[in-house]
Amino acid sequence: MSLDSGAARVDAAAYMKQWAARVEETLDHLVPEDGGEPSEMFRIMRYSLFAGGKRLRPILCVAGAEAVGGAPDLVLPAACALECIHTYSLIHDDLPAMDDDDFRRGNPTSHKVFGEAAAILGGDGLLTLAFELMTGERMADSAGPERTMEGVRTLAEAAGATGMVGGQLLDIRAGGKVSDPPELEEIHRRKTGAMIRASVYMGGLLGGGSPDEMSALARYGEKAGLAFQIVDDILDVEGDAELMGKSTGTDADQEKVTYPALHGLDASKEMARRVTEEAIGALAAFEGGAPALAALARFIVLRRF
Amino acid sequence: MSLDSGAARVDAAAYMKQWAARVEETLDHLVPEDGGEPSEMFRIMRYSLFAGGKRLRPILCVAGAEAVGGAPDLVLPAACALECIHTYSLIHDDLPAMDDDDFRRGNPTSHKVFGEAAAILGGDGLLTLAFELMTGERMADSAGPERTMEGVRTLAEAAGATGMVGGQLLDIRAGGKVSDPPELEEIHRRKTGAMIRASVYMGGLLGGGSPDEMSALARYGEKAGLAFQIVDDILDVEGDAELMGKSTGTDADQEKVTYPALHGLDASKEMARRVTEEAIGALAAFEGGAPALAALARFIVLRRF
Repeated sequence: MSLDSGAARVDAAAYMKQWAARVEETLDHLVPEDGGEPSEMFRIMRYSLFAGGKRLRPILCVAGAEAVGGAPDLVLPAACALECIHTYSLIHDDLPAMDDDDFRRGNPTSHKVFGEAAAILGGDGLLTLAFELMTGERMADSAGPERTMEGVRTLAEAAGATGMVGGQLLDIRAGGKVSDPPELEEIHRRKTGAMIRASVYMGGLLGGGSPDEMSALARYGEKAGLAFQIVDDILDVEGDAELMGKSTGTDADQEKVTYPALHGLDASKEMARRVTEEAIGALAAFEGGAPALAALARFIVLRRF
Repeated sequence: MSLDSGAARVDAAAYMKQWAARVEETLDHLVPEDGGEPSEMFRIMRYSLFAGGKRLRPILCVAGAEAVGGAPDLVLPAACALECIHTYSLIHDDLPAMDDDDFRRGNPTSHKVFGEAAAILGGDGLLTLAFELMTGERMADSAGPERTMEGVRTLAEAAGATGMVGGQLLDIRAGGKVSDPPELEEIHRRKTGAMIRASVYMGGLLGGGSPDEMSALARYGEKAGLAFQIVDDILDVEGDAELMGKSTGTDADQEKVTYPALHGLDASKEMARRVTEEAIGALAAFEGGAPALAALARFIVLRRF
């Protein structure tokens, strides 16, 4: 399947804008300023939740639900749970003991605003909140308890010791000294890929997908996650980091190993194109071609170069 | 109901020893050394999981299941999930940015052994693991998806922003300057009480309890949680901290406000006795009087003074 095929076409930029707004509305509703006591917890969590993220994971979740014919707005609580976990991981990654970043997307990081202890607790609160959102009434009523429970398990596995958290530990332990492609790929697969894959998968799962559809979404998610990471590395080198919201050049400053550093820029771009094609290829399992997921992969990866 | 009534009697010390061993066996099985990659994650998590805790929360969960006539060993995965969350909270509390403790139960704290970044990630991993254990096959097969899902929600609420994490934030913000009893009680209710209450409640819920039984367990858990905290404060002053596994005198060193500091030692002991009586009173709703829960409350609170 070529990158330009697919019956229906979706305007990815418009799709992302529309659903980012819906996700933010829902987050604002589910995690309100007066969400409970102590109120400072909600200020800390909201400070980072509403710091200008692109809502990529929630949008992939929504598109996953759509791909299986589910009602996309019914998975919004799960989409928000994904964003809570992504946000907590950024707060903890920025801590002095980790990457020690003072700014993210141009704003002071959580620990610069609230102090280190409160930032740790704010991250802990967001991680825990994700599982409250997953099991709130809205989610269970639409997806049913079996699928909701499997969704919780999918989310916990992707975010946990063998997924995102494990990847972050590998990254820290490698300390910029990753020397071979399999090691780099493993770090990224766990640190970033697992949550991207889970985002698409959970959308399909909670949207009522069949086992075959779920396998296709898992394949798409794996390839898309890898593609996004390669592009992220390329953008970091090329100085256009608008998409991922990071300051540019930071990876090189910190001597982190990236795809361009390991393979060169041209080969990295070629890899990004190839795995994107593989991601879109997995969507052949869907009758309509899952145009939103195809458009998202194309948009995020290919419009850049 | 007097503290000494109750048809059947349970030997609390033997009960705790028996079930602590079963909990440790199950933890060892569910979180094995070769649990996955990166293997260091499992070393970090197990270092703190097997550092000599009394397994109070898991045992209360088991006793809650027994109280409603459920099979106690079927709730063991949830009991282990409670212990994972308790353990993560200790790792994060000990961090330099929080209480800055170098030792816990005579062993170097996680960040002293693995470094601060790895300790943060180890805590994050344990918190996430709790939700994997809650939604693993063993749990769902025995309790069914509806009750399992409600168990996840109960756990997340107790551990989260308005529960344990929120209580820890209040404690840090108070910085030893708590001046009135309601404030002290609120901090403890969130920081310690919420998880104690959830432990008993989840046992009853996953063990198949009726709504009336669940309310009785919630009342018992609230009162028992408060009683345990008062006793913890008293033991800290009196120098016998074996039960809670803390080094003694630390609260006074750090100028934390405690029940004895606020009310005096005698009045604190009287309070502990009174709320324990209230906890046991709540068990009148059970035909057999829930002898294990009654014995646990008596044992933990009253044998001390």
